[in-house]
Amino acid sequence: MKKKPATDIKDPGLAAQGKERIDWALHEMPVLQAIKSRFARTRPLQGLRISACLHITTETANLARTLKAAGADLVLCASNPLSTQDDVAAALVETFDIPTLAIKWEDTASYYRHIEAAISHQPQITLDDGADLVSHLHSNHPELLSQVIGGTEETTTGVIRLRAMARSGALKYPVIAVNDAFTKHLFDNRYGTGQSSLDGIIRATNILIAGKVFTVCGYGWCGRGIAMRARGLGAQVVVTEVNPLRALEASMDGFRVLPLLEAARVSDFIVTATGDKHIVDKQHFEVMKDGCVMSNSGHFDVEINIPALKAMARNSHRPRTYVDEYTLDDGRTLRLLAEGRLVNLSAAEGHPAAVMDMSFANQALCVAYLARHGKQLQADVHAVPADIDDEVARDKLTAMGISIDTLTPEQESYLKSWQEGT
Amino acid sequence: MKKKPATDIKDPGLAAQGKERIDWALHEMPVLQAIKSRFARTRPLQGLRISACLHITTETANLARTLKAAGADLVLCASNPLSTQDDVAAALVETFDIPTLAIKWEDTASYYRHIEAAISHQPQITLDDGADLVSHLHSNHPELLSQVIGGTEETTTGVIRLRAMARSGALKYPVIAVNDAFTKHLFDNRYGTGQSSLDGIIRATNILIAGKVFTVCGYGWCGRGIAMRARGLGAQVVVTEVNPLRALEASMDGFRVLPLLEAARVSDFIVTATGDKHIVDKQHFEVMKDGCVMSNSGHFDVEINIPALKAMARNSHRPRTYVDEYTLDDGRTLRLLAEGRLVNLSAAEGHPAAVMDMSFANQALCVAYLARHGKQLQADVHAVPADIDDEVARDKLTAMGISIDTLTPEQESYLKSWQEGT
Amino acid sequence: MKKKPATDIKDPGLAAQGKERIDWALHEMPVLQAIKSRFARTRPLQGLRISACLHITTETANLARTLKAAGADLVLCASNPLSTQDDVAAALVETFDIPTLAIKWEDTASYYRHIEAAISHQPQITLDDGADLVSHLHSNHPELLSQVIGGTEETTTGVIRLRAMARSGALKYPVIAVNDAFTKHLFDNRYGTGQSSLDGIIRATNILIAGKVFTVCGYGWCGRGIAMRARGLGAQVVVTEVNPLRALEASMDGFRVLPLLEAARVSDFIVTATGDKHIVDKQHFEVMKDGCVMSNSGHFDVEINIPALKAMARNSHRPRTYVDEYTLDDGRTLRLLAEGRLVNLSAAEGHPAAVMDMSFANQALCVAYLARHGKQLQADVHAVPADIDDEVARDKLTAMGISIDTLTPEQESYLKSWQEGT
Amino acid sequence: MKKKPATDIKDPGLAAQGKERIDWALHEMPVLQAIKSRFARTRPLQGLRISACLHITTETANLARTLKAAGADLVLCASNPLSTQDDVAAALVETFDIPTLAIKWEDTASYYRHIEAAISHQPQITLDDGADLVSHLHSNHPELLSQVIGGTEETTTGVIRLRAMARSGALKYPVIAVNDAFTKHLFDNRYGTGQSSLDGIIRATNILIAGKVFTVCGYGWCGRGIAMRARGLGAQVVVTEVNPLRALEASMDGFRVLPLLEAARVSDFIVTATGDKHIVDKQHFEVMKDGCVMSNSGHFDVEINIPALKAMARNSHRPRTYVDEYTLDDGRTLRLLAEGRLVNLSAAEGHPAAVMDMSFANQALCVAYLARHGKQLQADVHAVPADIDDEVARDKLTAMGISIDTLTPEQESYLKSWQEGT
Repeated sequence: MKKKPATDIKDPGLAAQGKERIDWALHEMPVLQAIKSRFARTRPLQGLRISACLHITTETANLARTLKAAGADLVLCASNPLSTQDDVAAALVETFDIPTLAIKWEDTASYYRHIEAAISHQPQITLDDGADLVSHLHSNHPELLSQVIGGTEETTTGVIRLRAMARSGALKYPVIAVNDAFTKHLFDNRYGTGQSSLDGIIRATNILIAGKVFTVCGYGWCGRGIAMRARGLGAQVVVTEVNPLRALEASMDGFRVLPLLEAARVSDFIVTATGDKHIVDKQHFEVMKDGCVMSNSGHFDVEINIPALKAMARNSHRPRTYVDEYTLDDGRTLRLLAEGRLVNLSAAEGHPAAVMDMSFANQALCVAYLARHGKQLQADVHAVPADIDDEVARDKLTAMGISIDTLTPEQESYLKSWQEGT
Repeated sequence: MKKKPATDIKDPGLAAQGKERIDWALHEMPVLQAIKSRFARTRPLQGLRISACLHITTETANLARTLKAAGADLVLCASNPLSTQDDVAAALVETFDIPTLAIKWEDTASYYRHIEAAISHQPQITLDDGADLVSHLHSNHPELLSQVIGGTEETTTGVIRLRAMARSGALKYPVIAVNDAFTKHLFDNRYGTGQSSLDGIIRATNILIAGKVFTVCGYGWCGRGIAMRARGLGAQVVVTEVNPLRALEASMDGFRVLPLLEAARVSDFIVTATGDKHIVDKQHFEVMKDGCVMSNSGHFDVEINIPALKAMARNSHRPRTYVDEYTLDDGRTLRLLAEGRLVNLSAAEGHPAAVMDMSFANQALCVAYLARHGKQLQADVHAVPADIDDEVARDKLTAMGISIDTLTPEQESYLKSWQEGT
Repeated sequence: MKKKPATDIKDPGLAAQGKERIDWALHEMPVLQAIKSRFARTRPLQGLRISACLHITTETANLARTLKAAGADLVLCASNPLSTQDDVAAALVETFDIPTLAIKWEDTASYYRHIEAAISHQPQITLDDGADLVSHLHSNHPELLSQVIGGTEETTTGVIRLRAMARSGALKYPVIAVNDAFTKHLFDNRYGTGQSSLDGIIRATNILIAGKVFTVCGYGWCGRGIAMRARGLGAQVVVTEVNPLRALEASMDGFRVLPLLEAARVSDFIVTATGDKHIVDKQHFEVMKDGCVMSNSGHFDVEINIPALKAMARNSHRPRTYVDEYTLDDGRTLRLLAEGRLVNLSAAEGHPAAVMDMSFANQALCVAYLARHGKQLQADVHAVPADIDDEVARDKLTAMGISIDTLTPEQESYLKSWQEGT
Repeated sequence: MKKKPATDIKDPGLAAQGKERIDWALHEMPVLQAIKSRFARTRPLQGLRISACLHITTETANLARTLKAAGADLVLCASNPLSTQDDVAAALVETFDIPTLAIKWEDTASYYRHIEAAISHQPQITLDDGADLVSHLHSNHPELLSQVIGGTEETTTGVIRLRAMARSGALKYPVIAVNDAFTKHLFDNRYGTGQSSLDGIIRATNILIAGKVFTVCGYGWCGRGIAMRARGLGAQVVVTEVNPLRALEASMDGFRVLPLLEAARVSDFIVTATGDKHIVDKQHFEVMKDGCVMSNSGHFDVEINIPALKAMARNSHRPRTYVDEYTLDDGRTLRLLAEGRLVNLSAAEGHPAAVMDMSFANQALCVAYLARHGKQLQADVHAVPADIDDEVARDKLTAMGISIDTLTPEQESYLKSWQEGT
């Protein structure tokens, strides 16, 4: 018989505080809350082994409670060494009896040990945020793949990786790209990342944003959320892009569009949100203004080339908890926030619960969908079923107290006709 | 031998002024200008009969010049009775020798007579803006369909109609949905309609927008352009929708979302941009504020139920060129702009040339594509080839003097890999 | 006996159209409308000779009707050769029997002849917009000064000139600076000039504002209105200033602040709103981008050094009614709108009626105040009495249907106390 | 001989962290930094006894270092029981040897005991933020008033109280209203309070602002800063006012203006910034939405009637550090942040250093001005000398790397002339 899954958390004593914060978040998650009530009755995941590699936040805790209420046998590990909220991890274990392995500021070895532990749970369904769990499972435990019914993936970066796996034939079970649900990526990538990234930067530095030159690398959904909010706080926003269409959009939205090498010379802040590697690199460090504050809102800590920065620095120093100052030979000091990891999850609390409500409602419904239909799906990356997306949108509007109009039969039929003209 | 196509314009004497304005627009259309030069050398449309049913504006004139430079045998008619610029029509005929049939404020009979004339040109390629030409051709001249290689369609409404035709098997030749090119609908529907609709409303009324309640019906690309610009001019913007996802987006973008019946009570302005019928109807007229200004930015003049309004009115009156005031029995006066036709094309000059540059660059390149490949395409609605879209975006950026970054090989390969993780 | 004052207008046949437009504007001027009704009963200006040098617009016509209803014997002339609306002038003379001398596009000789005619009316009260009437009267007709009870001045530039006159002892009668009323300069200089300047630029050029670099010279109330609206239309706005405090504000408001010489190199649009001379001058023309569009929203046509531009130009050309293109020797073409005169009044219709409502309510109330108290006032520039300003604000809110809160007695007394602390 | 002033701080062990944070802030305060260097040479405050009642933050610490460097004998106490940063207090005492009495969360008794201690220092100059020190000194220690040369006051509320004292003849020494310097109130009240209030609310609650109804009570400089930033974060902002002029401005700025009783029914957030008492009161609690989050950015904790709220509540609960939930009999839960004290200083770190740089540069220069000229000033509230304000603005621009234009002699003389007209 499989033994009880291990747990590894910082301090069980934080559970009470974690519980309070998890309940607080639940208030902002009415859609997930309704799903949880329904699942508690219908038990659609009864007895299913699930391993979830997610940011260990208050919102994730509410997703975990929902899966557990549905009958799942669940293990959680962190999808980022800096994003764990230790009080939440404690409450998951102590209060909600959900095995969790996650410690804030853990090192890479510990990080992968925890993923290993989650894999040893022999999951039938996986939840991932960045595809570290899926990729580790495929690379190191091919023997367990046959048991897996399917998985879900939360974030753009993970979907990019999974598509690469699928293209090369490496992916061995179906994964639903929850990230691509409209009610997910249009909301948490834009409004969630927007607010929380600025929140992270302000908490980390307490610097006035108004009047500063604020460069956003990448004008995808995350990037445009950050650009919109930085402007909303009074910054002069510069956008850098590699895609001509997005560059045009940024320009028409009133932003300056510059190559990063030029932007770096005038920026007070630089934030990356590209999903790619070494966006900010040696040649940019060389021309930056003294005091420039760099941070990353992309999934991995590779967007800023930190090894190159360290190699250039005469010395470094940590004046505030999430700030490292690197002093270069020419006397300039460059500042890096949260060691280049997701600044919104490290220095602030991640996406506000109100947006995660939609993402995690999609997650919960997709997991139930996999439980029911996963065996019929091919080993590929799948879209979220349209009716799930639509259901989440309608439930969210209702929860916000917003009514909208409905097409009349005449209007419906007009949209389908082509004879009626000018 | 086919006789020289007829022309029908208001006043040939306006040609000089039209020529000036067409040249002025050309300055803002560098991408189309470059295509025109290339086509003049390569003559990709040599001898091809083309009928185009488009808004007769300065920008369209530059598209027509481009097609003619490419060797086409072209006839133009209007796609809307109010959007014709008579000086442009005159210049097309007198200066550029392009047969044109279009007169501003023409009645419906004249409008369809002009479409008939364009059809009698026996087109091999059609260009449409709203699908009136295609639908008329299919309904009334099936004998000419076999000669047609293909067509293009400029606007959302037309694409909706064509898709309906294709679904029902009625569509008999391939049509490229130019509207769906990213460099088209992301730009002219948003930035073009946004600016020009507000421009039309202000020219028509000269009313201060700041401090007014301004309701936008529909939060598609046009609607969000209008909402963004109305807010930019200081209005309190309200959005109405039938789609829950878009309603959520509007709400997160900071707009009030209301059912129209509620919005109508508090609105100083109501603009429709839905592509559907009778959005603003009797029950809304009944509750509107005295003095409410209604206008439409959707393709057809059916979005506001004008017959119902007329039936309710005690009398009407035209205090300014594009304003009709309808006085109801209870003494309230409701104002309708431009007879409910596209306010941006009727009361202002339509999309600024800078956005039409991209739309019409796509048109020109798609027409050339049809000339080369049309016979291989099925009778269906087709997407704009991705490389055309991309080429337009790159050329536009260059013309705007904007440089962007390029992925390094390392970055390209990172995006394709999945092994590298946290 | 004084003979009936002369009139000089373009075309009496335009009166009907002018009347329609004046009535249209009246709908948006509820505060002035209420004053007019009251004045018609109380006749506070009975028999008083008034000369008014104002922009001849629909809103001014409603002010003139108000003064006439109050019993005044009124003559109107234009305060700018390009701002006259000929249909309004016609209606003033033909329909409302108010002697008016003003013709759009009149030359300087005609302009001053009209001022002379207004002076020959031997005014007891003067209304001015830019202080041309006051300054001409003082310089050339000192013999008439003793009859004058007082005057009002509408605009910043006029107030600056009058203060200079007062400082040097040249001013011989009291003038109320209506411009400095909060309900005037906070509203028409900001929201009025903002919207109408952009309106003028767009009507003159039909160029897309989104994505353009748009430079505003001067961050006073007019300048910040223009900057706010240009941003609202999607421009990248640059501000130039000479005042460090305003420069700081512009920067904190998220605008780039540059010296004009630097801004000129990157601007697609440059608008002046400074009240000073030769802001845009030879050295700026020398570095401007090809195609740069220059316009002025300041009172006089001196802010752009047009003689210097003409001297540099190889040739000039008028492609659209309000656009002059100057081609320089190096091939660049610079564009000047409305001959450097107020672009909002020349190429568009000036401030929307809703803001002029407040300005002209102040004017009407100040003229009545002068009639009653003018003889007690010293020959100096005077503030608008605070209760007039407050009355206008309250009446405007009521007309807009907006209710606000009132201090409770407890709150009033708290504001007056100092003992209650932490 | 006067004995060494007492100190009272939470924990001397926090000094090292406080020192780091104080130095970090200093980087953002280049203007104050330059003054400090100059004062260290010129010693303008040599031997002067100064008592300062200010928020004990990193920025205040840098002001204190500046005064000390100038030779002052300085004692500091807190101007608010919740705004003290204990690590800063520790560093002031331990590292910078500046006697300080301030403990976060101290009760009212302790708060006034500390003010007493500061008064027992027998100040020759006072610095105040809210006028608690001045008012306590006048009420309870009239015997010490004759020694006082003068004082400065930092905030609107304090200036209102001092004006009330001056009007009633109670004020016995001159006080400079630093708050009224343009470089102070235009910046820290608007940009500082704006960012930091939103920062405080987000840190306290982690709730998404986008899509929420966010009501700001008061449209003074603080209120408009908060409204601007809440909109910038995607909220639908409602403004309440008692002043008709400000209400009009808010409306023209695109905000809904409502009486609070109406706003309360629809608000997700309510923030007060009025300087007055019981703005949010029983009748508002009675109609609020379940879950409404209330906070205060005005100086004192009287803007929300907390006793009335407590009296209505069935029970209360603290789910997060700065949140108290009050459950009413009808089941609704209302949330109050930071016990109704300044949310930006309690739940976040107060104004960012970049704005305090200007406020405190004014403070430092005004204290030096008092030392030199205070004896010539009357016992009244005085404006900051204009050249101090201007010097601060210029130095700030320079520090930000922004160059601006300068008037040419021709332009200077044009502004002074009145002869040159149309």
